[in-house]
Amino acid sequence: MYKPGLHLISEFKVVDPEVLKNSQAMKQVLDDLIQEHKLSKVGEVYHQFPDSGYTAMVCLTESHISIHTWPEFNQVTFDVFLSNFMNYNNEIVTNIHNSVLAFLNATDVRLTQLNR
Amino acid sequence: MYKPGLHLISEFKVVDPEVLKNSQAMKQVLDDLIQEHKLSKVGEVYHQFPDSGYTAMVCLTESHISIHTWPEFNQVTFDVFLSNFMNYNNEIVTNIHNSVLAFLNATDVRLTQLNR
Repeated sequence: MYKPGLHLISEFKVVDPEVLKNSQAMKQVLDDLIQEHKLSKVGEVYHQFPDSGYTAMVCLTESHISIHTWPEFNQVTFDVFLSNFMNYNNEIVTNIHNSVLAFLNATDVRLTQLNR
Repeated sequence: MYKPGLHLISEFKVVDPEVLKNSQAMKQVLDDLIQEHKLSKVGEVYHQFPDSGYTAMVCLTESHISIHTWPEFNQVTFDVFLSNFMNYNNEIVTNIHNSVLAFLNATDVRLTQLNR
């Protein structure tokens, strides 16, 4: 079977749940990472719940990034999946994952690593 | 830790790889399933590669669905994740997952089940 690539899937908490209400700050972080790593965005959705969390996805030719936040529970579900079809992207998956967790000051991280 | 919900993640092959080139047929299937299960779509991306596969995501208030196809390798990566924040959705996750695999005539399924 063809092995598309690395998929990192995490749940975590943050130091200050207020950051989980700001989808536009996350869009800036992800856009910068996508540009830095020369990935190809083909669409995105950032849906902000009023005075609450957000649900967001970035669709890439290489696959996708998704993040869903629940400030009510101080909780985030996040995942990054890039295929290695055109380039070897495993290190980029790890870099994006860790950069987002660092930006949000993540704590109590539960990480699942799938080599799909 | 708050446990958002069930995330099913699969890789599989299909009987006829031609179906992996038709993003619009998949959009119809997913739209029907979203309506049937009364989920709330807040955005979507269907990106068709010319005479090849597609990469697609549906963003839901409940979380997301993604599918990436590689007819070159007769391969699909697919995932469905719904939170139980407003309703208990675990059975819906399984129903959507299995309905899409049935529509595509999936074979050689590798399934990962995460209770996030």
